[in-house]
Amino acid sequence: MTELRQDPIVGRWVIVQTESPWDVDDFHQHYVPVEKRHPEKCFFCPGHEQDTPPEVYSVPAVGEDFPWSLRVVPNKFPALVIEQELDSWPVGLYDASTGVGAHEVVIETPDHFKTLADLSFEEIREVIKAYKARIEDLKKDDRFSYIMVFKNFGASAGASIEHDHSQLIALPMIPKNVKDELEGAKAYFDYRERCIFCDMWKQERAEGERIIYENEFFITFSPFSARFPFEMWIVPKYHCCEFSSIDDERTYELAKALKDALIRLKLLLHNPPYNFVVHISPLRGNYEYYHWHIEIMPRISKVAGFEWGSGFYIVPSTPELCAKRLRDVIW
Amino acid sequence: MTELRQDPIVGRWVIVQTESPWDVDDFHQHYVPVEKRHPEKCFFCPGHEQDTPPEVYSVPAVGEDFPWSLRVVPNKFPALVIEQELDSWPVGLYDASTGVGAHEVVIETPDHFKTLADLSFEEIREVIKAYKARIEDLKKDDRFSYIMVFKNFGASAGASIEHDHSQLIALPMIPKNVKDELEGAKAYFDYRERCIFCDMWKQERAEGERIIYENEFFITFSPFSARFPFEMWIVPKYHCCEFSSIDDERTYELAKALKDALIRLKLLLHNPPYNFVVHISPLRGNYEYYHWHIEIMPRISKVAGFEWGSGFYIVPSTPELCAKRLRDVIW
Repeated sequence: MTELRQDPIVGRWVIVQTESPWDVDDFHQHYVPVEKRHPEKCFFCPGHEQDTPPEVYSVPAVGEDFPWSLRVVPNKFPALVIEQELDSWPVGLYDASTGVGAHEVVIETPDHFKTLADLSFEEIREVIKAYKARIEDLKKDDRFSYIMVFKNFGASAGASIEHDHSQLIALPMIPKNVKDELEGAKAYFDYRERCIFCDMWKQERAEGERIIYENEFFITFSPFSARFPFEMWIVPKYHCCEFSSIDDERTYELAKALKDALIRLKLLLHNPPYNFVVHISPLRGNYEYYHWHIEIMPRISKVAGFEWGSGFYIVPSTPELCAKRLRDVIW
Repeated sequence: MTELRQDPIVGRWVIVQTESPWDVDDFHQHYVPVEKRHPEKCFFCPGHEQDTPPEVYSVPAVGEDFPWSLRVVPNKFPALVIEQELDSWPVGLYDASTGVGAHEVVIETPDHFKTLADLSFEEIREVIKAYKARIEDLKKDDRFSYIMVFKNFGASAGASIEHDHSQLIALPMIPKNVKDELEGAKAYFDYRERCIFCDMWKQERAEGERIIYENEFFITFSPFSARFPFEMWIVPKYHCCEFSSIDDERTYELAKALKDALIRLKLLLHNPPYNFVVHISPLRGNYEYYHWHIEIMPRISKVAGFEWGSGFYIVPSTPELCAKRLRDVIW
């Protein structure tokens, strides 16, 4: 038996298997584990700094084991490049534009054998500070409308380089999914005069069964209409649309929440592939009805023709069961 | 160097690698080939009819090799089931509904070793007639708003059973992606008083470089803003929103177009995984501004965090090059 659930923000439906939902062990066979590692040939390891474009941001080493502790470099094979004019033109009824943008890689650690989940709170705080610093810098370029911050971990989540890293892509237009989310949040705000994300985390906390973690400023839950098994959202408990205004105290609490989510996922599902996306407001304009947050999407279930065609997701487990399993992890 | 291109219907952007786009051979390593086959243990093979729920539609055998030539059966592990009341309720700010629907499997051939691309025009015509007959039958159930017809081919496209089949899912609500497409088509129609799909195929034919195939009633092209390398759209050259009104002559021409597309894909890329989705109008209401069509999406490139978060696709090749390669296939 299944149940249909609707995401209140973008209107997407999911089909949730509420009767005999898949449990942890049912998922293991469905994903490719992270591949073997070869630090000697790795572009992102210390000693290979000349193999990447020059860094745009870095954090000095703390101890003596490594020459640095974090680097941000332009992507060597960028999807978009910064050094060209922004121009757009019609092609009959189609629209096209030059591929202006920025595509950067955040090398989160010098240690080839560590994943983001293994880093300390302090080290993860530096990763978040790097996102913030790069957003603030790229924002000065008025050709950019949006910056997407995301991470692909594991081969089946799209990571092509095994050394842990996340990415930033600055875009000259607001992506469709972001627009949908903004529109959904605005419609709710216009109707209720409240933020839908604020209402959502408060409802999740009141119900409790999908909550995974909470600290002073952040709460982690698997949303009622999760698209993926073990999906987690990390939502600030204070209303704010703009990620890059985060202060030091909140940055540290976010590092704690992010580490908590990733280590639970790692321990429970044996280092599964995942993507996360930092959902932030566009760079220019008034988006006070919006609420920035992070969505973590484990890539352990298949997305096939039905999902592509419909935007309707079939989920073989429930977020209630997944949240319980994640909550029960002891670390 | 890349170029940004926008889909004029739903507003989705793609990043197209226009400078040194990937060519055919660059894709081979990126997908899991179809797995080994075991006809003796296959639920969908003749002799195992009792392993599926009773058939709801079938086509008798033509020769003496097989007992039947096509069967449609309810999915043994359905995402949605027909035997329950349609009911919906609020969960705080969320919406939920019973999982009412129908989930059927079209076993396209009794031959375990054939794929849809290998079937004759006459056999593929029967597959299309089966889609049509099942839509017409399911439409009588007024709990259903939409029927999604789709195919997953190959493990990495989400096929869990190797014997070739396609699927129908009848849903009690219109999926988000369908709504987006309808809204995009309507906005264009309201502005231009013309159908965007009609304008699109005419423009594609006038430009020519993305055209792959054409017959009296159908045209196949890789759209200007294709999300996937070697993506193909089969579009009727006559304006019509409702797929199930297709007559016999057009059904046969569609079979020719579909076989042509699939055999080109098979020969060019060595039987790659793919999904196709039949984009049709909802079951009830006036959608005269819409235009049904089929979208074929080869699953040979990775979809990662950026695409999930943004709905922005990074495409390592151009539809112009992909269309040329597909057009040049001789079969």
